[in-house]
Amino acid sequence: MSGPLGTEVQTVDLMRGGLQLLQDPAGFCFGIDAVLLTGFVDPASTGRLLDLGTGTGVIPILLTEKTKCTYLAGLEIHAPSARLAQESVRRNGLTDRVEIVEGDIREAGEIFAAASFDVITSNPPYFAAGKGRYDPADPRAAARHEILCTFSDVSRAAARLLKRGGHFYLVHRPERLPELLGTLCADGLEPKRLRMVQPFRESAPNMVLIDCVRGARPSMKTEPALIIYEAPGIYTEEVLRIYGMETTEGHG
Amino acid sequence: MSGPLGTEVQTVDLMRGGLQLLQDPAGFCFGIDAVLLTGFVDPASTGRLLDLGTGTGVIPILLTEKTKCTYLAGLEIHAPSARLAQESVRRNGLTDRVEIVEGDIREAGEIFAAASFDVITSNPPYFAAGKGRYDPADPRAAARHEILCTFSDVSRAAARLLKRGGHFYLVHRPERLPELLGTLCADGLEPKRLRMVQPFRESAPNMVLIDCVRGARPSMKTEPALIIYEAPGIYTEEVLRIYGMETTEGHG
Repeated sequence: MSGPLGTEVQTVDLMRGGLQLLQDPAGFCFGIDAVLLTGFVDPASTGRLLDLGTGTGVIPILLTEKTKCTYLAGLEIHAPSARLAQESVRRNGLTDRVEIVEGDIREAGEIFAAASFDVITSNPPYFAAGKGRYDPADPRAAARHEILCTFSDVSRAAARLLKRGGHFYLVHRPERLPELLGTLCADGLEPKRLRMVQPFRESAPNMVLIDCVRGARPSMKTEPALIIYEAPGIYTEEVLRIYGMETTEGHG
Repeated sequence: MSGPLGTEVQTVDLMRGGLQLLQDPAGFCFGIDAVLLTGFVDPASTGRLLDLGTGTGVIPILLTEKTKCTYLAGLEIHAPSARLAQESVRRNGLTDRVEIVEGDIREAGEIFAAASFDVITSNPPYFAAGKGRYDPADPRAAARHEILCTFSDVSRAAARLLKRGGHFYLVHRPERLPELLGTLCADGLEPKRLRMVQPFRESAPNMVLIDCVRGARPSMKTEPALIIYEAPGIYTEEVLRIYGMETTEGHG
């Protein structure tokens, strides 16, 4: 099978219930951010879940194993990524549980019914449009830069589509934390739990995981930082566990 | 010398340039929060500094040794605490550099000239009025609960009194982070640096240090958490250093 950019599509073992994911090495490939986000979602989650900007679908596909959600949707604007996600869903035998919808986050309120999801997840673009260097014509740029949607668009979509008491989980950059928390609060998505992610024990955080509850009362729990590497190239036990590479189970 | 509540006033060695502090053991005693805040202030700070809600003055007195500020003011509403602070300033021979002003944070904008400070610090009450149990008649309650001023009052006072480009340093509780960051941003005090403080390496943060710059552009650096204890009852090297108890200098 050849990818959207003409390159060979790669099959990635998701190390979880035999799940596999198709992705184009020349296109957008999921990162540790998406995997850590799936490890931050409450495993007891049930009901309907939506991933905003799902790319090749890694988040909803992994969450079929990591939660008890019965319906998991992924919304993706980039048609070739959405097609790869659909094919992954088919190959994993998940067509009765996972639905990939091609569409724009800014129109999510018309695509899905208001207050119809129990859980919403998102690994949105981290950088403002115009910040840093990128080729706006490269579809990978829109996954990293706010070319097609801003954080406000993502937050507004989540607030509209989430049931009262439902959870919105996101991963983003700590540099933008004041703006993120301000936008979420203004949209009625109360941040209830926050966890910084840092490469090493002594390094500064470079990602932040946030769990919001729609309509909840203010009071946020901050968890100790999630450390990625024990030593250069060696994941910590916790990250191995999130990836499904528990050494005790002999996957590593 | 007897304290405001009739008890004996205690002299505390601040372990920094021979500085001492008077406090009433039955009244409000400064905590590690205030000391950590002084360690979070840029030691290269110069010019005019104001501490909002200074209590017995531990923050401005310590900052005479820890910064290059030439004028350090402390504003305190509780008259007996302000008197103890003034006496500490006198005994430390700092009357030409430190001024303790008895007054209300909500009236700080009339007490001091607008945009007249380079640095503002505050260790404000952490808990909303009405949260938890306290005796509202106990003067110590106002140091912990927002009885006499809210965080909005503190932020508004800092925004008014700080020069453009000046720093506002505060210590608070991570539970209130969304509200803190939202209020600071709305007042034009852009959070630029944040550091969680946690009792042990593996425990959740219970304090947060924030450094804001008035009128700055958004983008916040998060530092690795400050850990207080190496083991129960044993401070980490970093905390010993902030307290001035460096083992290498033989103070410990």
